[in-house]
Amino acid sequence: MFDYKLLAALAAVVEQGGFERAAQLLGLSQSAVSQRIKLLEARVGQPVLVRAMPPAPTEIGRRLLNHVQQVRLLERDLQGQVPALDDGGLPERLRIALNADSLATWWARALGDFCAEHRLLLDLVVEDQDVGLKRMRAGEVAACVCAAERPVAGARSLPLGAMRYRALASPDFIERHFPLGVQAGSLARIPAIVFGPDDLLQHRYLAQLGVEGGFAHHLCPSSEGFVRLTEAGFGWGLVPELQVQRELASGALVEIIPDLPLDVPLYWHHWRNGGELLTALTEHLHRGVAGWLVKP
Amino acid sequence: MFDYKLLAALAAVVEQGGFERAAQLLGLSQSAVSQRIKLLEARVGQPVLVRAMPPAPTEIGRRLLNHVQQVRLLERDLQGQVPALDDGGLPERLRIALNADSLATWWARALGDFCAEHRLLLDLVVEDQDVGLKRMRAGEVAACVCAAERPVAGARSLPLGAMRYRALASPDFIERHFPLGVQAGSLARIPAIVFGPDDLLQHRYLAQLGVEGGFAHHLCPSSEGFVRLTEAGFGWGLVPELQVQRELASGALVEIIPDLPLDVPLYWHHWRNGGELLTALTEHLHRGVAGWLVKP
Repeated sequence: MFDYKLLAALAAVVEQGGFERAAQLLGLSQSAVSQRIKLLEARVGQPVLVRAMPPAPTEIGRRLLNHVQQVRLLERDLQGQVPALDDGGLPERLRIALNADSLATWWARALGDFCAEHRLLLDLVVEDQDVGLKRMRAGEVAACVCAAERPVAGARSLPLGAMRYRALASPDFIERHFPLGVQAGSLARIPAIVFGPDDLLQHRYLAQLGVEGGFAHHLCPSSEGFVRLTEAGFGWGLVPELQVQRELASGALVEIIPDLPLDVPLYWHHWRNGGELLTALTEHLHRGVAGWLVKP
Repeated sequence: MFDYKLLAALAAVVEQGGFERAAQLLGLSQSAVSQRIKLLEARVGQPVLVRAMPPAPTEIGRRLLNHVQQVRLLERDLQGQVPALDDGGLPERLRIALNADSLATWWARALGDFCAEHRLLLDLVVEDQDVGLKRMRAGEVAACVCAAERPVAGARSLPLGAMRYRALASPDFIERHFPLGVQAGSLARIPAIVFGPDDLLQHRYLAQLGVEGGFAHHLCPSSEGFVRLTEAGFGWGLVPELQVQRELASGALVEIIPDLPLDVPLYWHHWRNGGELLTALTEHLHRGVAGWLVKP
């Protein structure tokens, strides 16, 4: 069998983003961690890590991490029955990537009961809905919520429904910039808010209106911050309807063009051999999410 | 004078996190960007970038980026008067690092008017309060909000007041885990929620109670997600009072130990030669923030 001490060192360095933190996590010296990585590389016959800040797995390193992730899930199934097999320390966490807007809205409500019942700890990784799948492919997470349908090799994808977004702004902002309603021609010069370089929702909304190319925008990589900026009149932006039900009802936020939503389908990706816990979580999610997402 | 085409290429590669996106931003081919970086390195006589994913500046690269950031701020002062000097394209954004909890609470309300009035676009970078200063040191941002007081060379720091945190959980969670009140001895085994590896607030709170070492916790790198997880009974965690006034008033969230807040002082760091706009923004912030933060 593989030497899992070595593989655990690799996983810790990548997941913790460095040798120092990996050493803390594993309760080892930094040089011991480094030694294990070197030994792993000697056995594999090639580098498993790119030594940068943070260290990144090589192609073969990614395949090994992917394997570790799946072994961990299988181990978890046994832990209830043979807890003594565990090598001590605190319970492991299930690492899941999801988009910030899901985390800010339906995620906790759909899974709270499940995690309490199964005494499951989560390690959530926020990734834009269009790039979360990279973390699956890299073997860094056990599952992910993202906008891509096609599963990576060894995984399955399950449609969850769509997040409904609305292009919103504060009433003051609308009065200042759109006194005569939205004019597509001038929209590119009126400040928008964009979550980050991977967020293309505002681009898609503008494309719907025939506006192509660049446009003035703030960058704000926080779901809650995005809503606060929109309320405070920094710009207009696409916000999940679920997140601002109160603000829409009170009129603190208003659609810039009435009833022109943008729906983003979301998929749950999980390893096919992910073990019982992941299967149960998948079933729970499938049932629980229906109330929050719309049918695409 | 320096060749700013080359420096702009370096800034774009680092800020966009890669050559491909930098090329898109600059409207160049990827090989042209790569060519400019090589030429810059030939002139400087040493590497300015570590070629990893994402590319990171070397020590000398950081100093150059720091310089670019300051030149951009000085240019901005002139732009109102000599707009034709600008090399075209959309307006530049002011890059500011801040902690997620500030962005989720007071930031937008303290600065909304200022940004609208000065037609200022922001590029916000979320960094944990203890590490935001690294971005200043690296020259990647013009200013930052963080918990460290000591300014980096060339910058000033200004105390803003303190964010007040409270250790909260849902009433159900408290009934399930603390039926007889919080017992310090067992607290480490009851799930907490931690923002990420740099978030030590829960550790500090536990240390106050005499609990040292590891403890069971979820990881959730999103302010809004953190509140949602707390409400849904995933665990207890330290949440900014400002963010959950409604939940505290309604009883949806309750302090696990009555009236035991944790105050985190925040500082505004900005370049000393940052130009008029940054000075005006600093003054506005200083006045505006008083209502939101507590005196440490």
